[in-house]
Amino acid sequence: MSNLQPYLDKLATLDFKAMYEGDFFLTWEKTDDEIAATFAVADALRALREKNISTKIFDSGLGISLFRDNSTRTRFSFASACNLLGLEVQDLDEGKSQIAHGETVRETANMISFMADVIGIRDDMYIGKGNRYMHDVVDAVTEGHKDGVLEQKPTLVNLQCDIDHPTQCMADMLHIIHEFGGVENLKGKKVAMTWAYSPSYGKPLSVPQGVSGLFTRFGMDVVLAHPEGYDIMPEVEEVAQKNAAANGSSFTKVTSMEEAFRDADIVYPKSWAPFAAMERRTDLYGKGDDAGIRALEKELLAQNANHKDWTCTEDMMKKTKEGRALYLHCLPADITGISCEEGEVDASVFDRYRVPLYKQASFKPYIIAAMIFLAKVKDPVRTLNALQEASAPRRSF
Amino acid sequence: MSNLQPYLDKLATLDFKAMYEGDFFLTWEKTDDEIAATFAVADALRALREKNISTKIFDSGLGISLFRDNSTRTRFSFASACNLLGLEVQDLDEGKSQIAHGETVRETANMISFMADVIGIRDDMYIGKGNRYMHDVVDAVTEGHKDGVLEQKPTLVNLQCDIDHPTQCMADMLHIIHEFGGVENLKGKKVAMTWAYSPSYGKPLSVPQGVSGLFTRFGMDVVLAHPEGYDIMPEVEEVAQKNAAANGSSFTKVTSMEEAFRDADIVYPKSWAPFAAMERRTDLYGKGDDAGIRALEKELLAQNANHKDWTCTEDMMKKTKEGRALYLHCLPADITGISCEEGEVDASVFDRYRVPLYKQASFKPYIIAAMIFLAKVKDPVRTLNALQEASAPRRSF
Amino acid sequence: MSNLQPYLDKLATLDFKAMYEGDFFLTWEKTDDEIAATFAVADALRALREKNISTKIFDSGLGISLFRDNSTRTRFSFASACNLLGLEVQDLDEGKSQIAHGETVRETANMISFMADVIGIRDDMYIGKGNRYMHDVVDAVTEGHKDGVLEQKPTLVNLQCDIDHPTQCMADMLHIIHEFGGVENLKGKKVAMTWAYSPSYGKPLSVPQGVSGLFTRFGMDVVLAHPEGYDIMPEVEEVAQKNAAANGSSFTKVTSMEEAFRDADIVYPKSWAPFAAMERRTDLYGKGDDAGIRALEKELLAQNANHKDWTCTEDMMKKTKEGRALYLHCLPADITGISCEEGEVDASVFDRYRVPLYKQASFKPYIIAAMIFLAKVKDPVRTLNALQEASAPRRSF
Repeated sequence: MSNLQPYLDKLATLDFKAMYEGDFFLTWEKTDDEIAATFAVADALRALREKNISTKIFDSGLGISLFRDNSTRTRFSFASACNLLGLEVQDLDEGKSQIAHGETVRETANMISFMADVIGIRDDMYIGKGNRYMHDVVDAVTEGHKDGVLEQKPTLVNLQCDIDHPTQCMADMLHIIHEFGGVENLKGKKVAMTWAYSPSYGKPLSVPQGVSGLFTRFGMDVVLAHPEGYDIMPEVEEVAQKNAAANGSSFTKVTSMEEAFRDADIVYPKSWAPFAAMERRTDLYGKGDDAGIRALEKELLAQNANHKDWTCTEDMMKKTKEGRALYLHCLPADITGISCEEGEVDASVFDRYRVPLYKQASFKPYIIAAMIFLAKVKDPVRTLNALQEASAPRRSF
Repeated sequence: MSNLQPYLDKLATLDFKAMYEGDFFLTWEKTDDEIAATFAVADALRALREKNISTKIFDSGLGISLFRDNSTRTRFSFASACNLLGLEVQDLDEGKSQIAHGETVRETANMISFMADVIGIRDDMYIGKGNRYMHDVVDAVTEGHKDGVLEQKPTLVNLQCDIDHPTQCMADMLHIIHEFGGVENLKGKKVAMTWAYSPSYGKPLSVPQGVSGLFTRFGMDVVLAHPEGYDIMPEVEEVAQKNAAANGSSFTKVTSMEEAFRDADIVYPKSWAPFAAMERRTDLYGKGDDAGIRALEKELLAQNANHKDWTCTEDMMKKTKEGRALYLHCLPADITGISCEEGEVDASVFDRYRVPLYKQASFKPYIIAAMIFLAKVKDPVRTLNALQEASAPRRSF
Repeated sequence: MSNLQPYLDKLATLDFKAMYEGDFFLTWEKTDDEIAATFAVADALRALREKNISTKIFDSGLGISLFRDNSTRTRFSFASACNLLGLEVQDLDEGKSQIAHGETVRETANMISFMADVIGIRDDMYIGKGNRYMHDVVDAVTEGHKDGVLEQKPTLVNLQCDIDHPTQCMADMLHIIHEFGGVENLKGKKVAMTWAYSPSYGKPLSVPQGVSGLFTRFGMDVVLAHPEGYDIMPEVEEVAQKNAAANGSSFTKVTSMEEAFRDADIVYPKSWAPFAAMERRTDLYGKGDDAGIRALEKELLAQNANHKDWTCTEDMMKKTKEGRALYLHCLPADITGISCEEGEVDASVFDRYRVPLYKQASFKPYIIAAMIFLAKVKDPVRTLNALQEASAPRRSF
């Protein structure tokens, strides 16, 4: 017998009706109750799985995945989430498909959706494009369903766009909640979301933006730190400000890693590309200006190299609360002396936090499954109860 | 409760015993009853799915797919069909496999089939090769089964060969039947299967050939229109002639799009490559004559460019029956001003028919599932009845 | 009703408790009882499948596959085995994944394993690396499980490493057992594991090594034949010697194919690369010395070409016991006049043994499934009995 009761009790207090038949684009488009419901369902599904109770709510059906950027962990997390619920993953590989032939989004979205229950998309490369593309897909399948082309509207899960990385940041947050022993213990905690040096360039902005937009909702004081010129999207900063104001906390910007780390309870040092540079890159790609792209890359690498001191050393960690802040990373990290000469974090720091880092990652499959569950299941409490009562074994031996 | 009765009643009147343990290569190798049975089972499976009734007749098993040409919609249709019936798709990716090492068809066919229930193949690039290859595969697995190597003979579904595109044309036809309110309403209808200009070259002949070979069986007058020199395979024209004769209808060839469109009830304007040129290309590939292939490509593109007036404009559509013919396309279409400068169809025409076009495509997964169902299930009526009575939910929530 | 009784009776006499929650790296790390148990479970699963009885012991779960070398048959065998037991395959494609970004094995192993029940790896290219890599993966997931990162430790199945090819050699052996009517009939039989000429270079050593290490355990006299300089790993020869001594049989090395074939009951002529050359290649790759690799390739091809007389001709076959030895090959073979000008075997010999060769290959999916079954199921006899009693149909029609 699993113990779902705390999660079911929690869900009973929340209003998340609007998630039914919805999609998951950005965390700040969801209410506090909806965010809390996602965490509760993720925990409940994990509790069932860990008790060897099947959570297959689909007997068949497809989960379509479309990765427009490399991915290991998000790809496997999506595949795991689909499998957990009974969906088979079908990859839309643009290399193999006729999208290469210049097909429109509207058409492709319908063509892949005749038996799709879920579509997961990662499209984080170009500012102003990824989230837009996801909306185009949802608009297309919504219309397709209305027109009688599709039996149902598949649910979209944003697996990382140019604006947010909701499955990552929600997994990060659920990890924090578990590490701190409950959401009620987060009030007043200081989070340092800081830029860190990496020898690669052009890393997406979706993690610092996602953290700014989500962590500010939990009464935590979020400090966003980066060198001059590494700004994130201004509209996300506005979201963070509003969240902080509404939750009696703060969202501060500083240009010193040290200042951010001072007395921090949680640190998230990670490289990203300047927002303005990413906009320029998007324009250059649009024009097919390869020389311009190469010149920009050179310029950005040189700019990064001016900030090699932005790195999470042991000394830096000592400045955090009791020298024991919770270190977060979305992985893979650029580890000094391991994966690169000079990088985001010292090997000894990374190594000390390896187990919690892996646990942080382990929440992502359940977060994705919860997003799907809440979009597909009309009465999640009843269905979770039914799964628990049936107690069909996942491994029947 | 779904309403399968009309389909079950229909099936009761048909003789399709020979489909059991068979394969699906070309529509004209099937009797009228077998074609009708495929439509009835496709409709029945769709009715069950749309009522959330599981159609999983396999608890495990593999559907092998082998795409020797790019594909989005057929790939997803095959994956959907397999999933609908409970089979997991396993792609044979020739890049990743040892086929690249010069392995024989006979051997590979057996090696991939130890737990295969179905094999779906797309091999449409070379005249005289694709259909032959599929037969080689079926011969190999038939022998493998007879020799005790394979527990069963997997069923082949032709997902497009050099001669026919049965899953496409059957989906097209089922769409027509639904649009016209029943097969009994098709008698005397005029179909214009016409060539149309496209800036790309070397598009397969399997759609015009498949339409000629299938639509002529329904009492419809099929007009095949193309510029001089864009002939389809003569043996398929013969099939079409015979079908027309047997069904009191006609199969006519003209060299004017306008003539074909005049008073047509259905139009299918689509680019294809001249049969004779495709034979030359196959020879050049056989010899590895890259310069010859490039020269041929140039020649064909120039030849195509002489016929830019073969395009489905609003004016052209006005010539059809009441200006309201049903416009068909297998997708993706080359849309003037959208996917190319000048193409097969005007954007406004395409846009007006978008919903029916998507519906046309939506039949393909069910057609493929029906082909598999009829080849694997000994008593389809009994099994459909059993599925309906069990009414196991596909989504159990 | 299937007849599992003989297999269940056999299992009752064996001690294979240590396989539970274990992994399968090398056959010689398993006891005789464990090898025998693997064969019994493979036969039992096949008996159930052939009686249309479902062997799905997982209702959901993932089988991760990682192929660091091309593969058709092992890939499909792994996919088949997973499907047979209810697991969905998720490929880790290093091209698509962030491994390309220099990620550590330890991290990736955990990141792909959150819902993995099994990991199958093929890594046979570099001497001293493949088996090592597999151990690194297992160490990582074992630690991950201990640390509470992973709900369970996934089971590793070695799908071919630099040392052994256990799924192949176990399938080969089970084929021999069936061909000779039982393991008790193998005592004193002569096996010729011989090198054969191939126009390609650098074929893995894992098959001759695996055969030497496994076949010597069955009371058979194994003769390893190769030209001077084509030695296998000395530590595997030691294993073979010890096995032979313990089983009252022999392991002999000769430098004449003819001598090996004389009066042989079983012949396995197959090309491989010299162990020492493969070590050199591994070093060259480590240094990124492309010129060195090309020079080595040239040298090896020239060396191979000195031994074109090492080929399985009709005359050679006549020297075997009554001219009717059982011919084995792991496939694909280099067939003279078919897949190459001069190769490992005459076309007429190969053709005569085609059916047994395909049967040989047909055991691999069941061997892999048995390895998984024994690692995951606590009481295999009880679970096999339960599957038989439930007799849930695989195809429910």
